[in-house]
Amino acid sequence: MHVLIIGAAGMLGRKLAHALAGAVRLGGQRVTRLTLADVVPPPLPGGITATAEAVDLRRAGVAAALVATRPDVIFHLAAVVSAQAEAEFETGYAVNLDATRALMDAIRAQPDYCPRLVFTSSIAVFGTPFPARIPDAFPTRPKSSYGTQKAMVELLLDDLTRRGHVDAISLRLPTICIRPDAPNRAASGFFSNILREPLMGKPAVLPVRDSLRHWFASPRAAVRFLMEGAVIEGAALGHDRALTLPGLSATVAEAIEALRRVAGQKAVDLIHHAPDPAIAAIVETWPQDFEAARARALGFTAEASFDEIIAAHIEDEMGGRLP
Amino acid sequence: MHVLIIGAAGMLGRKLAHALAGAVRLGGQRVTRLTLADVVPPPLPGGITATAEAVDLRRAGVAAALVATRPDVIFHLAAVVSAQAEAEFETGYAVNLDATRALMDAIRAQPDYCPRLVFTSSIAVFGTPFPARIPDAFPTRPKSSYGTQKAMVELLLDDLTRRGHVDAISLRLPTICIRPDAPNRAASGFFSNILREPLMGKPAVLPVRDSLRHWFASPRAAVRFLMEGAVIEGAALGHDRALTLPGLSATVAEAIEALRRVAGQKAVDLIHHAPDPAIAAIVETWPQDFEAARARALGFTAEASFDEIIAAHIEDEMGGRLP
Repeated sequence: MHVLIIGAAGMLGRKLAHALAGAVRLGGQRVTRLTLADVVPPPLPGGITATAEAVDLRRAGVAAALVATRPDVIFHLAAVVSAQAEAEFETGYAVNLDATRALMDAIRAQPDYCPRLVFTSSIAVFGTPFPARIPDAFPTRPKSSYGTQKAMVELLLDDLTRRGHVDAISLRLPTICIRPDAPNRAASGFFSNILREPLMGKPAVLPVRDSLRHWFASPRAAVRFLMEGAVIEGAALGHDRALTLPGLSATVAEAIEALRRVAGQKAVDLIHHAPDPAIAAIVETWPQDFEAARARALGFTAEASFDEIIAAHIEDEMGGRLP
Repeated sequence: MHVLIIGAAGMLGRKLAHALAGAVRLGGQRVTRLTLADVVPPPLPGGITATAEAVDLRRAGVAAALVATRPDVIFHLAAVVSAQAEAEFETGYAVNLDATRALMDAIRAQPDYCPRLVFTSSIAVFGTPFPARIPDAFPTRPKSSYGTQKAMVELLLDDLTRRGHVDAISLRLPTICIRPDAPNRAASGFFSNILREPLMGKPAVLPVRDSLRHWFASPRAAVRFLMEGAVIEGAALGHDRALTLPGLSATVAEAIEALRRVAGQKAVDLIHHAPDPAIAAIVETWPQDFEAARARALGFTAEASFDEIIAAHIEDEMGGRLP
């Protein structure tokens, strides 16, 4: 089985490539070849025949060249993140919508070819006002350019799947926590920062009220979602190929309590509460809880507590123990 | 007030241009100038300063030239219809999505310009399975390329409106009945044919069961929707600029009974029932009834019976009386 990952240099792309290189099988089939593409050169995992390509899907011919080798499964993770898509209108639509269309046109142009495409959508396809717990059938009326672009691609992929050009699945991932990266400018960054940094004995800033509730899954769960999304039967999905995935609905206070249980009061004391109205204004409009009934019925599962999320981080990123 | 109609040669475009030429005011303002654009030369109505342009929005520079005169209101009615969008994948996306994006890019490129854009969306943005009566919050998961393209544009217009580039409203029109045109290949054509033709003493074919229920409004109501959509306050619409408009939920049998009341049994006898499984297969997946609560609360109204729909047709298309 030949697998292509577009956006392979990102956090999830690297973890997915590593998991696929180590996995004996993906849905019963051996992964024998891995092609990794991103705008910067993706790192090559060991233990598998892998090719890395530094390419920009926006450029003419790039999508056709990637698809010419007819990968069996394509993970399309490449995207401009929400803050950039909001700040740079053209870049957001060019990368998140047009580059995806270029990829789909290239797939459609291949005769007798209908690969599984795993697309990372987002809970940003939903916009306020929200019910306390958002059902699967909640309308997609996003309130960001990023969410708009993701929702447009979901529609396109449903149409192309219905027409038999691709066998797509759009996975609306929860907010990934704990991200292993260094602190970044993303509005959601603090959710990871307030756990990752204190676990390493470093200070972190909490810019919002600790009663804020949000929707989380670990990087490990996200990689599992992607791999499961690659092999789930199309017939089990039906026409609507966009799945809201399970996650953990929890407050910041619950995350901090879990940190206290794992790393003690000294870790919690490293969190400095400095309210930031700009960040609060963004984060207060985010969803807090989802039913994710369809995905749960299909067998997708996420962490049930922040204790599990922290344990996964310590195992996967810290060699299994605190410093 | 300067009004631009794109798609002005179509049935609704011509009726709208005629109505605007005759209307003293649109929302309190005089319509002083009308620009009519379509791929074929639109007819010029009398009684107003009007320009007709035969242009293709897909061609470079066309959108910019149309928008350079900074119309106050733009009606964007131009579209490839559902059957063609399904048969010709590229044409559908090029006209229904890309040409609309070109228009929006041109609007965005004009400094300090934020016109009201009235976009004709469609109930095809909704896909089966349906509840008996579809609420406003029903998700848009279309099952046709046409519906997909309309739903994608709705999302784009919400985003551009939120960003202040345009003041858009997307109107999901009911199936227009009675269309004044000659019978055409559209799967929905028979709904009009079985009334228009017998009213003129001509035969017509009914290809589906007469218990079939669907969702209708007259051309007169549709033109009124467009004109009301042009002047409704953005604040009254909020973020979600897509409105499912009121219509009449009625069965084919109810339409035929109304025909009998207006034109007698001899008109009904001109309807020949010849079941067509291909047409039935399409039409059976169409929605039957909508709440349209938001649009009704905003003051939009449609016909309450097929008697009214037939009466409007006789007044508007037949000089007020049967032959």
